[in-house]
Amino acid sequence: MDKYIHTVQYYETDKMGITHHSNYIRWMEEARCDLLKQVGWPYEKMEELGVISPVTAVECKYKISTTYAEKIAIRAKVEEFKGVKLKVSYTMENEAGKIVFEGKSEHCFLSTDGRPMILSKKFPDLDEVLTNAVGV
Amino acid sequence: MDKYIHTVQYYETDKMGITHHSNYIRWMEEARCDLLKQVGWPYEKMEELGVISPVTAVECKYKISTTYAEKIAIRAKVEEFKGVKLKVSYTMENEAGKIVFEGKSEHCFLSTDGRPMILSKKFPDLDEVLTNAVGV
Amino acid sequence: MDKYIHTVQYYETDKMGITHHSNYIRWMEEARCDLLKQVGWPYEKMEELGVISPVTAVECKYKISTTYAEKIAIRAKVEEFKGVKLKVSYTMENEAGKIVFEGKSEHCFLSTDGRPMILSKKFPDLDEVLTNAVGV
Amino acid sequence: MDKYIHTVQYYETDKMGITHHSNYIRWMEEARCDLLKQVGWPYEKMEELGVISPVTAVECKYKISTTYAEKIAIRAKVEEFKGVKLKVSYTMENEAGKIVFEGKSEHCFLSTDGRPMILSKKFPDLDEVLTNAVGV
Repeated sequence: MDKYIHTVQYYETDKMGITHHSNYIRWMEEARCDLLKQVGWPYEKMEELGVISPVTAVECKYKISTTYAEKIAIRAKVEEFKGVKLKVSYTMENEAGKIVFEGKSEHCFLSTDGRPMILSKKFPDLDEVLTNAVGV
Repeated sequence: MDKYIHTVQYYETDKMGITHHSNYIRWMEEARCDLLKQVGWPYEKMEELGVISPVTAVECKYKISTTYAEKIAIRAKVEEFKGVKLKVSYTMENEAGKIVFEGKSEHCFLSTDGRPMILSKKFPDLDEVLTNAVGV
Repeated sequence: MDKYIHTVQYYETDKMGITHHSNYIRWMEEARCDLLKQVGWPYEKMEELGVISPVTAVECKYKISTTYAEKIAIRAKVEEFKGVKLKVSYTMENEAGKIVFEGKSEHCFLSTDGRPMILSKKFPDLDEVLTNAVGV
Repeated sequence: MDKYIHTVQYYETDKMGITHHSNYIRWMEEARCDLLKQVGWPYEKMEELGVISPVTAVECKYKISTTYAEKIAIRAKVEEFKGVKLKVSYTMENEAGKIVFEGKSEHCFLSTDGRPMILSKKFPDLDEVLTNAVGV
């Protein structure tokens, strides 16, 4: 997968002069959506077809602070997918190539009425794409 | 109407050490929703009944900066309502009683399918409440 | 400690109709700052005295979704403090008393020039207060 | 000037299914910073040299709603600069070429200790660049 680049915005900084830690969760979402786009299943297509994929868990390790105008390269990787739960990992690097952040997220798949969905039955294409993306 | 109190959060500050200007728009929304609650028409009730009220315009004048942990007292007032367009004004004061911000917002009323709604026909109660709230 | 109440704002919801998951991290911060206030060491006092306390790790488990206008009761608890690293846990409940979210955060203490700080040397009062707050 | 492209993020949408109106203020900032970069005075350079430029006023007209994954082309233009106050205008278009938003912002220039700054004295280069950017 290609890395996703996020440029730190001024409104993402806080009084400490650095990026507020809550924004990394948002960048994880940006990179995850970019990954889905790269494998041909942009999230907006999933939603149009009636699949939603809420976040069920998140883990973040903040290694080095970042600040305004830095370009952060984000590597999102599908760590696990066996049909029901999706696990994604994230590594973020600054322009010096230093790892500034490591994270993980977990997701389930629901139909728009909120019921759990077995992707392999309803959307075998998406199921295959996610299965093939593991570790890539 | 009672004033609405917003305590500035750390995540609302920026690198300048002050509240980022985009947050005042959010506080306007908080105070407006509080006003609707005070007049007996909380926004969640409006939405349940099929009325949405998007923002069509906003104006902000930033007078004095604010920062983390300050308590901001917000006075929201219905400035104009003649059935179609709602205009609300906002005055925000810090704990020293100084005006830190003045703002205005304009809103229309739509049904959930996006069509303009004449409140006096569909929801005469809400229409009356907003009419009576002008200037109060 | 008293629980901290956060009312979900409209701007915190997303296209799924529920609270966007990134906001819980911000509510953790709100509840943590409220805890520091309750023990007599509001974060703004710490910063004035030259102590900053960045977040070094975060963990979130999203149990039940929340949405606009819900009042969320947040219980923040100091789980561990041995002078250098602070660990805080968070349990959030909706108005029906159901647990909607569980989280953890880790923090270090730095002087404003970015160097690690031994609280017991510089601020024995704060060190004692945090030590006594463990598990309360 | 080149237009600045912002792709609407999922976390920028709200319960109405559209971009929350507060985000446009943030995109104005993104486009304004991009403009400063294009004229050779990125905002981080200004800050390093001891100039800050807070927002003193903002005006927004929301024409057409936008939503997740749309690419918004933003044209920022210096409308007025006579040494003390900077006025910038913004026009945002969706991919169909429709104008979705029009806005204005006003800014002053301060030294980092909060005192007003006459750019022509302290930073004649920046003063000239902004003067030449008017209407471009």
